[in-house]
Amino acid sequence: MFMQIVDEKRVFGGRQIRFEHNSNTLNCTMQFSVFLPPQAESQEVPALYWLSGLTCTDENFSSKAGAQRVAASLGIALVIPDTSPRGEGVQDDPDGAYDFGLGAGFYVNATQSPWSEHYHMYDYIVEELPSLVEAELPINDKRALSGHSMGGHGALVIGLRNSELYTSISAFSPIVNPTQCPWGEKAFSHYLGNNRNDWEAYDAVCLLNQKQGKNVPPIKVDQGDADNFLEEQLKTDNLIEACKANSVAADIQYQAGYDHSYYFISTFIEQHLRFHAQNLL
Amino acid sequence: MFMQIVDEKRVFGGRQIRFEHNSNTLNCTMQFSVFLPPQAESQEVPALYWLSGLTCTDENFSSKAGAQRVAASLGIALVIPDTSPRGEGVQDDPDGAYDFGLGAGFYVNATQSPWSEHYHMYDYIVEELPSLVEAELPINDKRALSGHSMGGHGALVIGLRNSELYTSISAFSPIVNPTQCPWGEKAFSHYLGNNRNDWEAYDAVCLLNQKQGKNVPPIKVDQGDADNFLEEQLKTDNLIEACKANSVAADIQYQAGYDHSYYFISTFIEQHLRFHAQNLL
Repeated sequence: MFMQIVDEKRVFGGRQIRFEHNSNTLNCTMQFSVFLPPQAESQEVPALYWLSGLTCTDENFSSKAGAQRVAASLGIALVIPDTSPRGEGVQDDPDGAYDFGLGAGFYVNATQSPWSEHYHMYDYIVEELPSLVEAELPINDKRALSGHSMGGHGALVIGLRNSELYTSISAFSPIVNPTQCPWGEKAFSHYLGNNRNDWEAYDAVCLLNQKQGKNVPPIKVDQGDADNFLEEQLKTDNLIEACKANSVAADIQYQAGYDHSYYFISTFIEQHLRFHAQNLL
Repeated sequence: MFMQIVDEKRVFGGRQIRFEHNSNTLNCTMQFSVFLPPQAESQEVPALYWLSGLTCTDENFSSKAGAQRVAASLGIALVIPDTSPRGEGVQDDPDGAYDFGLGAGFYVNATQSPWSEHYHMYDYIVEELPSLVEAELPINDKRALSGHSMGGHGALVIGLRNSELYTSISAFSPIVNPTQCPWGEKAFSHYLGNNRNDWEAYDAVCLLNQKQGKNVPPIKVDQGDADNFLEEQLKTDNLIEACKANSVAADIQYQAGYDHSYYFISTFIEQHLRFHAQNLL
């Protein structure tokens, strides 16, 4: 457990800090960002963990979502990991595609060579990262989880599989049914192998059906109806149907005219933070 | 007068639009961004013109400042130009430095070859851009002006020299006295030649002294006291002294712990928009 500050900025009276540490889980050096609200100067605060989408690092959400304003007023920390293992020794997609390999860890524990050497983002998010920030920073163990696109998939899957660890989960434009879309099929076949039964533990729609709606934390999802990825990759209707079939009262909204960008996230992040605050604070 | 949309996003119920047009003033193709608040769907709205700093394009402020939230609630458009002429035919710093040439037009009308062929950012901001957006978009001729760093310099200089055109001016971390700092000396000697008397028309401190405080619009300035450029380049105290010497009641504040980044701008942009709204609306 050792981490060092590589950058720090003041924002909205709090501290936006970028850390570097050697991850045992991922077997490489990782960077992540944390926003500590002003309240963290005198007490431990709860945290929203934010999982970013394809091609992102911890910097996209930090600089573009405008989340610090509301987090500062509510007294909630933001913990923002990278989206895959990193570094020279970490295998990337041989073709350099944006949707697999570096920047595209899909929040799974890879079982297939060579990916299994580093790609354990599931364990990193569930175990190593919270243990680290709760030990080293004024952050308590009340956790909420959110994310965008691939990170929305990660937030739903991790929150559904670990409902005792998160008081609520939310997502923007999530890949809700990755076993049934090209992004998921490509990533899962490489990371997890060709047995599709093994993929279901990382698919929010499959998990909702497996759980039959039991022990599901409060869920909030926003999806732009002008999102180019909606029909082929995101398939929000499949999540709506799974919630309905399993009597899960999730708040899933289509937002008219919004696309897949951070402009969409910035517009609705306040509502998500206030949703999580109901149970975090 | 012709411009075309190259990108459009919905944000906070309004429209973030990127345009491309052939600039007669700059003798090249330019891009700029506009945020139209929801109110612009049914009426003409006033505009805050935002001038960005060194190395920026129109995209930095658009994606990182979080200004659209407040602009949407107030009913103010944001007009966000690029920071220099652009394109293959436009001369850059021969050494590719970040502080001169492309991305560093310093909001002057260059008089020296080869810069005078394209580098007329002063006229572009004062004349061509407002004429274009007021003719083509639901934007009226009530204008305020703000900017960051080199763009804070631009906002102060253009606002002071054209007080009839702007209801108020503001700046984040402005270069207040460019005739007395390395960034200004390098840029002005190339763009304007070696006669330092010619530089004073582009120096906010010199202009305040020349105007003896007469016809000065309301001014608001914020400056982080942890800004690495403060002492050598920005010299905020020189502006405070010039305002005092000329009985100008500008609101100039040092903000403790803030640096030169967009995290600083995002923290205080709401206060600047509400300051401008007092006279714009």
